[in-house]
Amino acid sequence: MSADGCFIVLEGPEGAGKSVQATRLAEWLRTLGHNVIQTREPGGTPTGDAIRGILLQSDHLHLASETEALLMSAARAQHVRQVIAPAIEVGAIVVCDRYVDSTYAYQGGGLGLPMDRLREIQAFATGGVLPDLRILLDLPVEVGLARRHGDVDQINRIDRAPIEFHERVRTAFLGLAEADPASWIVIDTTVSIDEVTAAIRAAVSDRCGVREASL
Amino acid sequence: MSADGCFIVLEGPEGAGKSVQATRLAEWLRTLGHNVIQTREPGGTPTGDAIRGILLQSDHLHLASETEALLMSAARAQHVRQVIAPAIEVGAIVVCDRYVDSTYAYQGGGLGLPMDRLREIQAFATGGVLPDLRILLDLPVEVGLARRHGDVDQINRIDRAPIEFHERVRTAFLGLAEADPASWIVIDTTVSIDEVTAAIRAAVSDRCGVREASL
Repeated sequence: MSADGCFIVLEGPEGAGKSVQATRLAEWLRTLGHNVIQTREPGGTPTGDAIRGILLQSDHLHLASETEALLMSAARAQHVRQVIAPAIEVGAIVVCDRYVDSTYAYQGGGLGLPMDRLREIQAFATGGVLPDLRILLDLPVEVGLARRHGDVDQINRIDRAPIEFHERVRTAFLGLAEADPASWIVIDTTVSIDEVTAAIRAAVSDRCGVREASL
Repeated sequence: MSADGCFIVLEGPEGAGKSVQATRLAEWLRTLGHNVIQTREPGGTPTGDAIRGILLQSDHLHLASETEALLMSAARAQHVRQVIAPAIEVGAIVVCDRYVDSTYAYQGGGLGLPMDRLREIQAFATGGVLPDLRILLDLPVEVGLARRHGDVDQINRIDRAPIEFHERVRTAFLGLAEADPASWIVIDTTVSIDEVTAAIRAAVSDRCGVREASL
């Protein structure tokens, strides 16, 4: 079995544990002897990090949804050509925190930009380099927000609009996974972190052809 | 006659005198009593200026063509929504140095990106806000490069590749103008600056319905 050039993406909302799981996955794959590149979006390149800086420092009340989508896509275009495609080419396993589906879920589902336009732009940005495996770390919106804010009651003091936004994002992610089951695995992350890690390892073993080790 | 909300774009290569002519045009229109917004791309907004900074500071040997096109388009998306569309809405005349056609000419004609994809992205970026008048300040590539470098002989020492790039850009601009004569005016800029100014005023008077003043 070979895992040469496998491109794995972790998707999902904030609070689902993507970055922790991405690091655990990359470390596990390295212990199995694989060449692993762990990266994230937006960012992953000096240009991408500069774009991430614009996204974070901008007054988001004034940043148009279209601008946000195009900046994300610009960072991705650079990331694919400078990091992801070259890594796949030399047979590495790429573990990436967010990719095209975050654009569909956040700027499409969340902000309401037209999905067909976003797909055209992603085709241009990625040059057709798409994940072999997309892992959706799913959890109810309230649980994710509570994890971020550390206090469930605090959710009630948050304006409803952000919660509705996150509901649309989750619905979009689940819809993407349902529409393409050959590419996606959906993992419930309301269980323990170790259980999520085990589920991810099982999925990667199955889809990318790597040996599974015990936890 | 009314010039309410007229959107005028100056296009063309470096060395054609766009910025000088844009300033002269804006000043002239103001003397005629019009509310004028003079702006430029990439830039025109704080987000756009930050994007311009990325484009200028990046090592262009490593910046993918697709990244460049998407960054230009992101700056444009913000520019349209934050500056151009609101100005048109209040009846101002917008004088803009470069717009969508620079993307078609430079990233399409020059860098060879597919024109149909670029058109899709521009439709998304602009939201359909397009110029009422596009003025192409045209000149032979050698003349433009000589103006920039101040020495015609120096051109021969420049690698041929940039000259061929600029030839493709010029050919693309001329092709865009030829394909849509109702939208474009092509002005030869090998004549004097005052003659170019006069030709621009005549075009703006004709297409945007403003009174023409003597030079």
